[in-house]
Amino acid sequence: MGKKYSIGIDFGTQSGRAVLVDVATGDVVAVSVKEYTHGVMDEYLPDGVTKLEPDWALQHPKDYLEVLETTIPAVLRESGVKPEDVIGIGVDFTSCTMLPADKEGNPLCFHEEFKSNPHAYVKLWKHHAAQPEANKLNRIAEERGETFLKRYGGKISSEWLIPKIMQILDEAPEIYSAADRFMEAGDWIVMMLTGVEKRNSCTAGYKAIWSKREGYPSNDFFKALDPRLEHVVDEKLSRDIYPLGDKAGELTERMAAVTGLLPGTAVAVANVDAHVAVPAVGIVEPGKMLMIMGTSTCHMVLGDEEKMVPGMCGVVEDGIIPGFQGYEAGQSCVGDHFEWFIENCLPASYTEEARKRGIDIHTLLEEKAGALKPGQSGLIALDWWNGNRSVLVDADLAGLIIGCTLATKPEEIYRALIEATAYGTNVIIEAFENSGVPVRELYACGGIAEKNELMMQIYADVTNREIRISASPQTVALGSAMFGAVAAGRARGGYDSIFEAAKHMSKIKEKYYKPIPENVEVYKKLYAEYKILHDYFGRGANDVMKRLKKIKSEAGRT
Amino acid sequence: MGKKYSIGIDFGTQSGRAVLVDVATGDVVAVSVKEYTHGVMDEYLPDGVTKLEPDWALQHPKDYLEVLETTIPAVLRESGVKPEDVIGIGVDFTSCTMLPADKEGNPLCFHEEFKSNPHAYVKLWKHHAAQPEANKLNRIAEERGETFLKRYGGKISSEWLIPKIMQILDEAPEIYSAADRFMEAGDWIVMMLTGVEKRNSCTAGYKAIWSKREGYPSNDFFKALDPRLEHVVDEKLSRDIYPLGDKAGELTERMAAVTGLLPGTAVAVANVDAHVAVPAVGIVEPGKMLMIMGTSTCHMVLGDEEKMVPGMCGVVEDGIIPGFQGYEAGQSCVGDHFEWFIENCLPASYTEEARKRGIDIHTLLEEKAGALKPGQSGLIALDWWNGNRSVLVDADLAGLIIGCTLATKPEEIYRALIEATAYGTNVIIEAFENSGVPVRELYACGGIAEKNELMMQIYADVTNREIRISASPQTVALGSAMFGAVAAGRARGGYDSIFEAAKHMSKIKEKYYKPIPENVEVYKKLYAEYKILHDYFGRGANDVMKRLKKIKSEAGRT
Repeated sequence: MGKKYSIGIDFGTQSGRAVLVDVATGDVVAVSVKEYTHGVMDEYLPDGVTKLEPDWALQHPKDYLEVLETTIPAVLRESGVKPEDVIGIGVDFTSCTMLPADKEGNPLCFHEEFKSNPHAYVKLWKHHAAQPEANKLNRIAEERGETFLKRYGGKISSEWLIPKIMQILDEAPEIYSAADRFMEAGDWIVMMLTGVEKRNSCTAGYKAIWSKREGYPSNDFFKALDPRLEHVVDEKLSRDIYPLGDKAGELTERMAAVTGLLPGTAVAVANVDAHVAVPAVGIVEPGKMLMIMGTSTCHMVLGDEEKMVPGMCGVVEDGIIPGFQGYEAGQSCVGDHFEWFIENCLPASYTEEARKRGIDIHTLLEEKAGALKPGQSGLIALDWWNGNRSVLVDADLAGLIIGCTLATKPEEIYRALIEATAYGTNVIIEAFENSGVPVRELYACGGIAEKNELMMQIYADVTNREIRISASPQTVALGSAMFGAVAAGRARGGYDSIFEAAKHMSKIKEKYYKPIPENVEVYKKLYAEYKILHDYFGRGANDVMKRLKKIKSEAGRT
Repeated sequence: MGKKYSIGIDFGTQSGRAVLVDVATGDVVAVSVKEYTHGVMDEYLPDGVTKLEPDWALQHPKDYLEVLETTIPAVLRESGVKPEDVIGIGVDFTSCTMLPADKEGNPLCFHEEFKSNPHAYVKLWKHHAAQPEANKLNRIAEERGETFLKRYGGKISSEWLIPKIMQILDEAPEIYSAADRFMEAGDWIVMMLTGVEKRNSCTAGYKAIWSKREGYPSNDFFKALDPRLEHVVDEKLSRDIYPLGDKAGELTERMAAVTGLLPGTAVAVANVDAHVAVPAVGIVEPGKMLMIMGTSTCHMVLGDEEKMVPGMCGVVEDGIIPGFQGYEAGQSCVGDHFEWFIENCLPASYTEEARKRGIDIHTLLEEKAGALKPGQSGLIALDWWNGNRSVLVDADLAGLIIGCTLATKPEEIYRALIEATAYGTNVIIEAFENSGVPVRELYACGGIAEKNELMMQIYADVTNREIRISASPQTVALGSAMFGAVAAGRARGGYDSIFEAAKHMSKIKEKYYKPIPENVEVYKKLYAEYKILHDYFGRGANDVMKRLKKIKSEAGRT
């Protein structure tokens, strides 16, 4: 048997990409990216006349098919790899990104009669127009004492599946009734590839209130939401949920023709972008937390037992790695924080200095902020510029900076913002550990983790933990390719489990960040101050942030 | 009798200026400014070799004489006014700016033997090297239960006279013993003009712990500070203190020759820059607060009775206007606040926009911030970038901003800083009113008050009070000229009291700022939030600012 390859396909918010990976080593051999033709639709439908309400965010499922049709042939072409050497395909998707489909699996928006109905299209994860439905769901769930709430930090997000279905029912009952099923886009793509519907445990667990032990909420609960929803699970969803690492099916003749691969190529059940990164950095056991760091940060941890950790986004059995509880937490403002700072707070003199020295402004700031010692700025910030996801689960919180003097410099504020996100991460780690989910080591991937050494060192010092960094330039898509290799199985040149795949294909840099003891000592003191402020402003002692938000919205109305 | 004129001479930190004023109208006829030849000496003595310690700030008394010699002839020349039509001179000075002088009144630094001794020079108000002595004084005064502390908000500043004398005694006993007297520079200048020593009630009261009713602290107290200080008042100061509005004496032949004025021209007792501005805007009665707004703000109010107002800088009978209690409070960071913001926080895109439109950055910011409604930013700041003078009297407090989001714009932060200083002013007003000193109307002078309409409107809205603005381009020097006219008296074409002078010579703009009721309502809510934060961080509930400062100073040491 010669070299074998698998393909990972990562569907992001703006584009999809395929990577072709060497199954023996995890090396990425070829990459192809396709921007979505319709991008994110938040103003008009493709007809150019049907206007969307504020907070809407749709996509066109045709764009996803285009990704398959262009990127898979492209990586084959670029690499020269023969189709018979590609043994499996894995897919990850943003989530909850969902669509209504007919009996044949065609999205309702493909139907002439529905093409001007916004509810017939894909609702992207960041479609935020189902908040009234989410509020209703949370209220009723609380009134009924539904225990599932605890698995989601006490609250179901408006971004998730059931509120989105409720919004369709409320606003477009004709779409609700025409829909044979509502599907996660990831499961839908797998169905397109294989011709069979095999829903995955990750999105079912994290986004559709399903659990391996308890299944979905009861029909009674759905009836309480709306009598028409009583049988929504059996009528429009499915109780057949497949754990990650399962093979969903094999590539159909039709899709083989379209992609250039062989019919019968193994296809894994779908996965989610953040979750699929975990095995890609080699994490297949408890005690290690992966931080996927971008505009925001997702924190992924495995556990042996289901624990209720206050303020996390969810705990799902088989939700990340089969056989383990998968925990997810999040910080809503990380990279965004620094972009905000650079756009709104950076003086012309700094822009000018960077220009003169021919370096970018991030490099200049990292240099200046890196010259400071911990504590030297006298500043502490609360990293709530975009609310707080974990552990306070409160979008109405806002940012704070304290300790400013007439000598405060921009790089001190910049460093304080970095430190604030590190403190926020430490609060999450403490919440896990205090609830019996150990976090001994940190792993990080994403652009910030790879580029910003200062930030990673600060995280190591604040958390007093070693941090390892993903070595793959395509961590997420690599994770999908690994699940593709597992779907193929050892007999076809792949692996029999994600554990085996991780051993051979995962990628971690040799260099890692170690806490510097004297910095750890200073940050302990600063973190203690952060915690006092965190609890004072975040846990109701002084709800000034919420009151300011209310005053602000009243000012906006007059 | 033809037109009569008086001269006001204002000795500032960097320069001195003379203004020639029409006594009938208060119109400024001529101005002349002289920069001090030696400026502020904070590195070396004039010999260029004697190095000064950190926190020192000296001046050369020769520079003050040069001001008299150049500016008075200049205003006479420029205006064409004849010396016989100039009826009086008033002088104001920064304070406590003090010097040691010999029996003849010559500064000790004029003596060859002392010219390389830093302690022989003028200690400028912002000489901050006497902090150990101030700490000792405050400690001993507290231990002894000295009641005078209450008149100064509980603390004697290192900037004031007694700590400065103590420092001379500690570090240069030869200067202490060679000094026939220690004088405020204002009193010394008046002595130079008239040949007689007439110390004024304003600096004695605000800076030398003197009070009309209780005099100086007891000899016992001074002895407790240092046995050599037991008789300092009788040996080196004077118990003869003259109220503002008194005539100190008449111009000597020698000074007449130097200045071009007639011998016998009346000279008023000296005054302080901030205090002398009060009658210049027409305030000669209780209920009206003057804000002198520059890098920091001084607040001046008259009262009928001596009340103990927590956190003010001082209360002095005859300290501003004879016959009234003069109250002074202060905010340590006003104009400085905005300069800090512009230097450290203003993005290049704003600098560029101002450049393209050909307006200055202050104008651009005022325009953008002025387009916002109260409350619309969702921000509140604590205006403690330079500590808090009144009412918390705590230099270790630091700035805070709360309510930031990813949508927060620079002009929102800028406006929040303005609002914070307005809230700080309101705290001071409340402290006065709660202590029985009414503040019904506000007056403002200084560059910010004249130029920044947005700021003045915000102050009117936050304090819910009308604000009147000084109309003289030379408010402070006009005040001194008014006291010059009073020193001359009605018989010589002046006035018999500062009340009369104020009626004719004070200058207020016709246009004034009125609170806008809907803004007042919003600011009431925001001020309530400010107060909660003010008390939480300022009164010991959470001393995080002090702890951060400690951590910062430790970080600086390693």
